[in-house]
Amino acid sequence: MTERELVSWIQKRAPHFGQRVPNGIKVSIGDDCAVYQPKPNEDLVFTTDFTIEDRHFTWKDYKPIDAGYKALARALSDLAAMAATPEFALVSLAARDECIVKGFMSGIFRCARHYNVTIAGGDLSKSDRLYCDITCAGRVPRGKAILRSGAKPGDYIYVTGPLGLWKKKPIPRLDLAPLLRKNATAAIDLSDGLLMDLERLLIASNAAAELSAPPQVQRGASLEQAWQEGESYEMLFTSQRRLALHRIGQIVTGAPGKITGENLPNQPAGWDPFGKLCNS
Amino acid sequence: MTERELVSWIQKRAPHFGQRVPNGIKVSIGDDCAVYQPKPNEDLVFTTDFTIEDRHFTWKDYKPIDAGYKALARALSDLAAMAATPEFALVSLAARDECIVKGFMSGIFRCARHYNVTIAGGDLSKSDRLYCDITCAGRVPRGKAILRSGAKPGDYIYVTGPLGLWKKKPIPRLDLAPLLRKNATAAIDLSDGLLMDLERLLIASNAAAELSAPPQVQRGASLEQAWQEGESYEMLFTSQRRLALHRIGQIVTGAPGKITGENLPNQPAGWDPFGKLCNS
Repeated sequence: MTERELVSWIQKRAPHFGQRVPNGIKVSIGDDCAVYQPKPNEDLVFTTDFTIEDRHFTWKDYKPIDAGYKALARALSDLAAMAATPEFALVSLAARDECIVKGFMSGIFRCARHYNVTIAGGDLSKSDRLYCDITCAGRVPRGKAILRSGAKPGDYIYVTGPLGLWKKKPIPRLDLAPLLRKNATAAIDLSDGLLMDLERLLIASNAAAELSAPPQVQRGASLEQAWQEGESYEMLFTSQRRLALHRIGQIVTGAPGKITGENLPNQPAGWDPFGKLCNS
Repeated sequence: MTERELVSWIQKRAPHFGQRVPNGIKVSIGDDCAVYQPKPNEDLVFTTDFTIEDRHFTWKDYKPIDAGYKALARALSDLAAMAATPEFALVSLAARDECIVKGFMSGIFRCARHYNVTIAGGDLSKSDRLYCDITCAGRVPRGKAILRSGAKPGDYIYVTGPLGLWKKKPIPRLDLAPLLRKNATAAIDLSDGLLMDLERLLIASNAAAELSAPPQVQRGASLEQAWQEGESYEMLFTSQRRLALHRIGQIVTGAPGKITGENLPNQPAGWDPFGKLCNS
């Protein structure tokens, strides 16, 4: 299969390709660039996420279609942490052969259809080991992106679901956008473990936390796992309001990043690769 | 050096980090997503480009700083082909060690400063072989992006400079944006060879070409190389106007992609990896 045939295969299956969709993508796969027309009074948010064979998944645990699904779902989880609505994604994929490309792209398309994401472009290359980088764009009402840095002393700290088990198929909590926009002062998605991600939010907010309750624990997991395990893709957020959600403590003044409370594990020990650069 | 120290090293050196710059980036490195505030009446264009060790460069020919410079310059060349003004880039980088990360990022920053690009975020991971994916965003006045698909029979075909020698340090022709916006009906950057890139433009425009003159040849190159060699990063564009630029022929009706003329090499033979997906 030539390059042109493979691109044609991809175009035919890409959600929204050649359709008039009510989003801002005016030009997608097939030109030097994708073209997006912003709507008035919206901000755009962007995240980029590497998915690498034997680092983020293995062929022992994943079929290509499932690995592709996960690659896009991980990026969408970053949009969820900003309370954003997904718009489009660009997919750069280096893989060994055509079969893996097709399987992996099929998984990306499945996830894209599920969350209404236009695949607007990308780049394809050959590589023994699979490397996929996905850039995902979403929109929020002007000025309404929820940042990591907005937590203030007195804010309550919430976790949106039980933790402890690594999720083979991430479910990005895009459904929480209305709740977060209405209530959250700061948010982060739990990709690397509760304690590590809480520490990141605290450092960004220049604040500390006093914890009063452990996280909820998934059936089949230990409390230790609930504190430490990454890839839950639930949200950790702060709010000035008392909400009917599981609260684990409060933001306090103190050394940025410091976490105190009873019965805590000794130190953050989530997944900290060398290293998630920024939009992690 | 821990992840946090490496991110801090990168933040301190990233162009525009922590500064109020007169572009749309409101939140950059350090949150779940970058935040961009579009200006009224602008469209945004996006490209993504993989740069892979031993495929797009080798350590024999490139120092990390030069490889990093090239990685961003290649992406900027795609913006130039849309007549766009660069705004920001996201950098996903997987590399062997901290030294390579620092050298490569320094090259990206050097190129970013030169072309006034904000580095708004990214992702960092570990990998024996270097993989870098850069997503680059630019802006054009609403509706003014130059596409590959706009060429019409009768349009003249121009090439913006002499060809033939592969460029170690690409110079993205962002300076041509005013010329292209005023005159071009279609454009593509010459990354994979004149004949191959012309064929792509023709297919996108559903047209054929009748060539009347060879391209200009760089000193030290052969005519054959000028037809075939990739990575010149000059522009190929079409226009209804007679311009004081090197003209190689005209768009004609015919089988989409067909190129006729005297003394042509037999067939497109530029660099066609398996495969540049789309925004190539």
